[in-house]
Amino acid sequence: MRLVDGEPADTISADDRGLGYGDGLFETIRFVAGAAPLWPRHMQRLAHGCERLRLPLPDPESLEREARLVCEGMTGAVVRITLTRGVGERGYAMPASPRCTRIVASFPMPSMAATAYVDGIRLHLCETHLAEQPKLAGLKHLNRLEQVLARAEWNDPAIAEGLLCDMHGRAISAVSANLFAVIDGVAMTPSLERCGVAGVACAEVLAALPQAQVRDLPLDECLRASELFLTSSVRGILPVQAVGDNVYGPGPVTRAMQAHWADLGFPMEQA
Amino acid sequence: MRLVDGEPADTISADDRGLGYGDGLFETIRFVAGAAPLWPRHMQRLAHGCERLRLPLPDPESLEREARLVCEGMTGAVVRITLTRGVGERGYAMPASPRCTRIVASFPMPSMAATAYVDGIRLHLCETHLAEQPKLAGLKHLNRLEQVLARAEWNDPAIAEGLLCDMHGRAISAVSANLFAVIDGVAMTPSLERCGVAGVACAEVLAALPQAQVRDLPLDECLRASELFLTSSVRGILPVQAVGDNVYGPGPVTRAMQAHWADLGFPMEQA
Repeated sequence: MRLVDGEPADTISADDRGLGYGDGLFETIRFVAGAAPLWPRHMQRLAHGCERLRLPLPDPESLEREARLVCEGMTGAVVRITLTRGVGERGYAMPASPRCTRIVASFPMPSMAATAYVDGIRLHLCETHLAEQPKLAGLKHLNRLEQVLARAEWNDPAIAEGLLCDMHGRAISAVSANLFAVIDGVAMTPSLERCGVAGVACAEVLAALPQAQVRDLPLDECLRASELFLTSSVRGILPVQAVGDNVYGPGPVTRAMQAHWADLGFPMEQA
Repeated sequence: MRLVDGEPADTISADDRGLGYGDGLFETIRFVAGAAPLWPRHMQRLAHGCERLRLPLPDPESLEREARLVCEGMTGAVVRITLTRGVGERGYAMPASPRCTRIVASFPMPSMAATAYVDGIRLHLCETHLAEQPKLAGLKHLNRLEQVLARAEWNDPAIAEGLLCDMHGRAISAVSANLFAVIDGVAMTPSLERCGVAGVACAEVLAALPQAQVRDLPLDECLRASELFLTSSVRGILPVQAVGDNVYGPGPVTRAMQAHWADLGFPMEQA
């Protein structure tokens, strides 16, 4: 089910700036039997993104009502909220008084092999590197061609994700998840000041692991980690089994975070 | 008037990847009384973009027929062709057999002061720098948040454009036009290997000035030019009168290119 500006609809204006320029933001939120444990973090990120892109923030209560409505009756669901700067004249200038477009839609949970959570997943080391743009770094905006190109680098179904570096060879994230490396017993996740998306699940892990570090993480150092895991608001905590020829086993930090995820109310397996 | 996949329509699917990820390309083509002198160059760029983004190229004859149809009866018009990877499942992976969405729409010509072509326009030096992404550089793709942010840096109506540099302080382009600098009598335009859009009007100027150079152009060198001008498929050849406090007069190369533009069939002024 989908609501566009609060009304059931399947289409948007062909003049929407979300289509014309990718001028907007999105959130993908996991619901389990009507509850979204990370909802407050999603709303926090959306508000921060609106501020940085100068988009008016929609009323959070309407968003929550609409999100609940579109996934009503679904055991597990992904709700995508897309917020654009709405219909505008041709040209990059922001309309003086934008009327944003708000799309709230539910999707079935993506299928993941149960073994993914037990044994981990395999990652392709992407040849696409992320461009460095501090003005957009961290935001979950609608300009996602880099991720589309990176995801197109492999089609082996045994590979579930890709590892992305920036132009300076620093590990940044997976294509659609954040990355943690455990090095000398300390969990660390790459700084997202120049590129990457500041994931809601990543923020939850950082809150659960106060000793974790956020810093630049050169790829070679990342690959020497004792544990690697991905964090995703939709897929949860995914151990990394291999990056190319480098192999890893799920370790104690990964397992602790999976337990934390279960405690939050997320089942670790989906059909 | 607007055609979506050949049929009159005002909307597109809310699941279109053009909206979801900016997964597509566009062209803005100036028509004068039904003729588009740069049409072949636009089609060439679109074909190149489709190849790089792995999009199926629509039939060029259909595109031309649709472009003519939407601007029928208009003395001057801008036709925007938007091509997306169409409706897809949630997730970055390209659909195995994409059904692209093709939007062909006409807009009135933007109004420009006639003095702009005589005396030149003023440019703001943008604080937003373009990120360097060779995999997307040159393409007129739908990921345009950098341009939206750059254009939002000023609202003085006396300033018509902004000058954009890359992260290394090299001049690249205007926000929605390409840039030429005349230095020691030689016209040069910045290399677009790392960022920027390879403009159709820029290509036309390069063809008309075989001695022109394409190379890296540090901002300070650019600002010391004897002439600066912008090239745009919609707005033509625009002399630059000032970049911040640096002032310029329209010089002989600029005037020669304006004459060339008139020869192509473009009037230099619009109401």
